[in-house]
Amino acid sequence: MANENEKKQNGGVDAITPMDVDFAKWYTDICKKAELVEYTSVKGCMVIRPYGYAIWENIQKILDGYFKELRHENVCMPMFIPESLLQKEKDHVAGFAPEVAWVTHGGSEELEERLCVRPTSETLFCEHYANIVHSYRDLPKLYNQWVSVVRWEKTTRPFLRSREFLWQEGHTLHETPEEAVAETEQMLKVYADFCEKDLGIPVVKGKKSESDKFAGAEATYAIEALMHDGKALQAGTSHYFGDGFARAFDIQFTNRENKKVYPFQTSWGVTTRLIGAIIMTHGDDRGLVLPPRVAPTQAVIIPVAQHKPGVLDAAGALKERLAKTFRIKLDDSENSPGWKYAEYEMKGVPVRIELGPRDIEAGQCVFVTRFDGQKKIVALADVEKELEATLAAVTVGMYEKALANQNKRTYTCKTVQEIKDTLAEKGPGFIRAAWCGSEVCEKTVKDETGAGSRCIPLDQGEQEPVCVCCGKPAQAMVLWGIAY
Amino acid sequence: MANENEKKQNGGVDAITPMDVDFAKWYTDICKKAELVEYTSVKGCMVIRPYGYAIWENIQKILDGYFKELRHENVCMPMFIPESLLQKEKDHVAGFAPEVAWVTHGGSEELEERLCVRPTSETLFCEHYANIVHSYRDLPKLYNQWVSVVRWEKTTRPFLRSREFLWQEGHTLHETPEEAVAETEQMLKVYADFCEKDLGIPVVKGKKSESDKFAGAEATYAIEALMHDGKALQAGTSHYFGDGFARAFDIQFTNRENKKVYPFQTSWGVTTRLIGAIIMTHGDDRGLVLPPRVAPTQAVIIPVAQHKPGVLDAAGALKERLAKTFRIKLDDSENSPGWKYAEYEMKGVPVRIELGPRDIEAGQCVFVTRFDGQKKIVALADVEKELEATLAAVTVGMYEKALANQNKRTYTCKTVQEIKDTLAEKGPGFIRAAWCGSEVCEKTVKDETGAGSRCIPLDQGEQEPVCVCCGKPAQAMVLWGIAY
Repeated sequence: MANENEKKQNGGVDAITPMDVDFAKWYTDICKKAELVEYTSVKGCMVIRPYGYAIWENIQKILDGYFKELRHENVCMPMFIPESLLQKEKDHVAGFAPEVAWVTHGGSEELEERLCVRPTSETLFCEHYANIVHSYRDLPKLYNQWVSVVRWEKTTRPFLRSREFLWQEGHTLHETPEEAVAETEQMLKVYADFCEKDLGIPVVKGKKSESDKFAGAEATYAIEALMHDGKALQAGTSHYFGDGFARAFDIQFTNRENKKVYPFQTSWGVTTRLIGAIIMTHGDDRGLVLPPRVAPTQAVIIPVAQHKPGVLDAAGALKERLAKTFRIKLDDSENSPGWKYAEYEMKGVPVRIELGPRDIEAGQCVFVTRFDGQKKIVALADVEKELEATLAAVTVGMYEKALANQNKRTYTCKTVQEIKDTLAEKGPGFIRAAWCGSEVCEKTVKDETGAGSRCIPLDQGEQEPVCVCCGKPAQAMVLWGIAY
Repeated sequence: MANENEKKQNGGVDAITPMDVDFAKWYTDICKKAELVEYTSVKGCMVIRPYGYAIWENIQKILDGYFKELRHENVCMPMFIPESLLQKEKDHVAGFAPEVAWVTHGGSEELEERLCVRPTSETLFCEHYANIVHSYRDLPKLYNQWVSVVRWEKTTRPFLRSREFLWQEGHTLHETPEEAVAETEQMLKVYADFCEKDLGIPVVKGKKSESDKFAGAEATYAIEALMHDGKALQAGTSHYFGDGFARAFDIQFTNRENKKVYPFQTSWGVTTRLIGAIIMTHGDDRGLVLPPRVAPTQAVIIPVAQHKPGVLDAAGALKERLAKTFRIKLDDSENSPGWKYAEYEMKGVPVRIELGPRDIEAGQCVFVTRFDGQKKIVALADVEKELEATLAAVTVGMYEKALANQNKRTYTCKTVQEIKDTLAEKGPGFIRAAWCGSEVCEKTVKDETGAGSRCIPLDQGEQEPVCVCCGKPAQAMVLWGIAY
């Protein structure tokens, strides 16, 4: 009977495991029941279903616009990298070779040289740059591509870690190190602003420690977000390569002084993991909660007492008005309003618009916002303006709610013991603690507490004088956390 | 000196091999010199450069809009297919297995089962449908994806035949065969309309003969276009599968009579080959000629005597006005107007807008249309309206020019000898000739004349009573041609 009751409460929607009972199961329940993904017979590879893919398309559209405003151009590289090309930069191959998929046969013939399916495309971009860049007049090159990449992971979870995932990878080439560093920082800021202003996800911008850098990079920057369960998720990275790849691939150009020199390089990427970040930052026990700017449906109209004369007509007219500006769905199916409420709550639609006979008579409708359950009566005459304002307020409100949670779960600690006690008492969260810069201390903290160094925040906040681990003078405050 | 003169005429742009001298070289010259593609160290795989990729992005945007208007949804399937899954439909595996790339290792470990890189995704969609389709209420499923696929071809050419290419593949599932056939025909029409109205490429819609069907299909429809050199290019296909795949993959649903039955299926696709079709339908000895709807730059503004006071300001103001509605470029570089004219002719920009001191004084500018070289004086006050009308007229004009060429090179023949004589005298073209339906005659015509059966046109036109080969009663008129 419990199940039946749960089903009734959820209006026919299968129950989602509560977050507090089993967060991992809550997550996969949402992925499956909101029809974001479906497993396949290829381990670690998934189908991204229409509702999930529509979120990605909206993410793409917004980010692609930001990239192009900053004069980036899209290109498309091959998905295969010859083994000899991957090997040209030694740190890079060491980092990626253990986790690539190898193509060895074309049809029935064995290939002369194995090809790996791209885990990332630095090597291909470098080969291309060496062909097309000759003079400072050819610089900067500001390229990006939207593709999928493959990394042969052992354990996988939808969106968070899969063997194939969708992403964009920006690759740029510059005359000077200053310009390349500025690009690296600029793109980190683009990612952070996108997460905060479009997805309502607060992030910490920071630099990765030496041990956590991208294979072949001089410096790796990342944005870190805190999930509902207190674990940390790396949501985007931006790398500065110096001229290391240029030297390995012999990319040279004639500079303004007519000398042959090496250019300086960056790369930066975000992935479908952002969908995982949305789920785990905003979701609740009733299901998904989607940020309006990327929600496939921004508002759903639910007719109340739809058998009564005039209700469906009025709902249809309202839909037509709103669909000119917003992504709108009208559910005029035979299911009960209660069933529909639960269904679209589960799907995370930001605003529900209820419209019944009495509303119509009064020239109004009711807005219910998904993230906080607030109701508001809205005059039909102002409905476009009100919906626009409500969607904007929802994005801000979701951000503030998530930020309050992040702040509540960010702790400053002075000793390793304090980190252990804090995590034991309060559960996972962000730990701010000072670090001397030694890899030994970094490893010790992780081994003793489970919390690894996530990043050295650009905004250092209040500093501590000595290393949390060894007590020697600190180099910087570090953000520690238990990572996804 | 010839080379120097050529360079001068082309305003500094490297000369393109004339079409009549060497059509294949003319084609690859355009691909490289217009910066559409660049070769890589992976044979048969290419970099699609920003200018080429922007054309593909415009193609995508328009087609994706058409698909979505017809209620199709985008999804994303994995790129890998386990060997056992590929083998489930026997015709399908027989058709594709000889040309797939096989992944055998993940990192340093050999896989238990080989995975092929998708050459097409019917098998993955079928596996997914079997999981998610249970009732007639779940139908139709109208899915599409934009991805790249791999086919291990022996000989390759940019856009026309490469080992990896970009495409969209629609996959739909229906309650009845009638509905599935209607979908197959509808999508063929969408492709044909897109080619004709958006790309200005006239096409013949037809059905493929039995020997030329897609592996696993009951019927394959295609659109065929005639290139400048008289060769035929298949520009898109749409397949009806009946319930063959559904039976092989055990996709069943409960129908309206509460019985378990098999659904009916389609798939349809177009590829980056369309860019090859654009080049070879519209291009000329001065370079690319791009249809306005997909041209990355729709009009380029060239200031004349730009050192004179007011010219660059006026050009900048004109750009700002036009950029609100159109994809506009202003070239205010130090290069001469003549150099710029040649450069943007080579790049196929549909309209050049010249603006000099006397134009400014007279409140006018000059439009020059790329496809026919026509000049027109346009009042600056009307420039938005005039550009819109000009771009629309250019698309129609390009279509009519290409159609006239296609008509001129389409010949009706009554005997195999007549086909041979026609091709010998006039060069390659479309041959209309009747066919009895036997594979022997189909093969004989191809072996004797070089022209294979391209399709059985839906619009049969004037019919002939007897087979061009054996003289027995004809089943249908067939379009024959020398294929790319």
